[in-house]
Amino acid sequence: MSFSSLVRFDFNGQPSYGDLLETNENSYVVRKLDGNIKKGFATTVQTVTVQKLLCPLEHAPIIQCVGLNYRKHATEANLPIPTYPVIFTKPSDALAGPFDDVHIHPDAQKLLDYEGELCVIIARDAKNISASSALDYVLGYSVGNDVSARNFQLSEASGGQFGYAKSFDGFAPIGPAIWSPSVVPDPQKLRYKTFVNDEVVQETGTDDMIWDVKSIIAHLSRGTTLRAETIIMTGTPSGVGIFSGRLLKDGDIVKVEVEGLGSIANKMVFDR
Amino acid sequence: MSFSSLVRFDFNGQPSYGDLLETNENSYVVRKLDGNIKKGFATTVQTVTVQKLLCPLEHAPIIQCVGLNYRKHATEANLPIPTYPVIFTKPSDALAGPFDDVHIHPDAQKLLDYEGELCVIIARDAKNISASSALDYVLGYSVGNDVSARNFQLSEASGGQFGYAKSFDGFAPIGPAIWSPSVVPDPQKLRYKTFVNDEVVQETGTDDMIWDVKSIIAHLSRGTTLRAETIIMTGTPSGVGIFSGRLLKDGDIVKVEVEGLGSIANKMVFDR
Repeated sequence: MSFSSLVRFDFNGQPSYGDLLETNENSYVVRKLDGNIKKGFATTVQTVTVQKLLCPLEHAPIIQCVGLNYRKHATEANLPIPTYPVIFTKPSDALAGPFDDVHIHPDAQKLLDYEGELCVIIARDAKNISASSALDYVLGYSVGNDVSARNFQLSEASGGQFGYAKSFDGFAPIGPAIWSPSVVPDPQKLRYKTFVNDEVVQETGTDDMIWDVKSIIAHLSRGTTLRAETIIMTGTPSGVGIFSGRLLKDGDIVKVEVEGLGSIANKMVFDR
Repeated sequence: MSFSSLVRFDFNGQPSYGDLLETNENSYVVRKLDGNIKKGFATTVQTVTVQKLLCPLEHAPIIQCVGLNYRKHATEANLPIPTYPVIFTKPSDALAGPFDDVHIHPDAQKLLDYEGELCVIIARDAKNISASSALDYVLGYSVGNDVSARNFQLSEASGGQFGYAKSFDGFAPIGPAIWSPSVVPDPQKLRYKTFVNDEVVQETGTDDMIWDVKSIIAHLSRGTTLRAETIIMTGTPSGVGIFSGRLLKDGDIVKVEVEGLGSIANKMVFDR
């Protein structure tokens, strides 16, 4: 794939892909790409300056999410570590752009929480993939926020199922780019932080994951077709609001930043 | 929508929709329909005899599933009834036709189980729908089998998340038709049975649901866009194999039959 940092933006009213060359205070310099994820990209010579980045994927077949994938978070949640990755999902409509406001339904505001996560985007259909070849199926990496309405996640509300509380429209902002494996040769050697407004609330290295990216892909593809453009949210580290008491309020901005790569920042807007 | 019992079948090598007129021992008489679910259907005068029915939907944006939705099943599972419907999902690739073999991955054979369920198919995009208007968004009803690899569902394997164990390719056979609300005016007045080979293993009336169809749609559409062609599997009654000891073996045929409407029957084929 001929990109380093794949972004999506409006170009003369049409969504277009590009390779992010430069991030400035209020704009981005992008080399426009022809093509799409399924067909592949051709580099063009055209360079454009854009004001806004869209969600790097318009649609995902499904968003597969891993729960309890950092040892410290499993400890803070006081939950035993199961023998396989803990899996739940979000639908495609949960996607949001890297700097979009996230509108919060009135029923989902009481215990609203953030979860900064490394995301993996699948390049092509995959089934029964071994861990040793799993990274060959990766288009690239991104950061995301697994926004969570904890009042719907508590066992007495959900029967213990995590997905509903995390599946509201806009509850999966990702971006700003999809970083190619050429830029991220080892996904287990990234450091990222989550900020609420300007306060650091989560900080981790992906070497702390219980299940690494290749094991997650192998598990998810067991007897199950993982479609191209599937997003995998690989789990959140310790420091979530439900345990620290720092739950989200109307107007809070959640930023998730991968060291040296980029960040997303989404304002929580409480609907009435 | 201009159908009573919407089926899908191959017509000169192309999948086509039709209205099921007659079910015979080895064939079906179908009135061919022009169009599709999103655009609507136009009746044609053409009647055809077909040998095989396909899954009535080629693809679903997502399959939303309700757990523990029959009081007797919640009792046999010894689980408390939460304050909202218990929700998990399956991806579109879990779909299978009404009489297709279901291939079972070697890792998913040890505690293989059936769950006969009433399915609801959404006709058009729906968000923040009240229970009182929810049935206006229903395209129709079908029966399904929420095939479950219980070894992946047990808490020590899954961390308590139900979806993975039920998301293997082919683990959601549905059909044989989508019955219009004109044929099913009240989805809470249906009786259905599940058979393994010829033995009745589940038998219930949908009046025993904890959350009725309209409440489920209202809950699922809260702040969340339910897309057209979304399938909702509304939960299984008591009598599943994990509690009765009647787990599925290679070659077992699971039939789910709605009284007076029709049935699906899928052979479990254990892959090596």
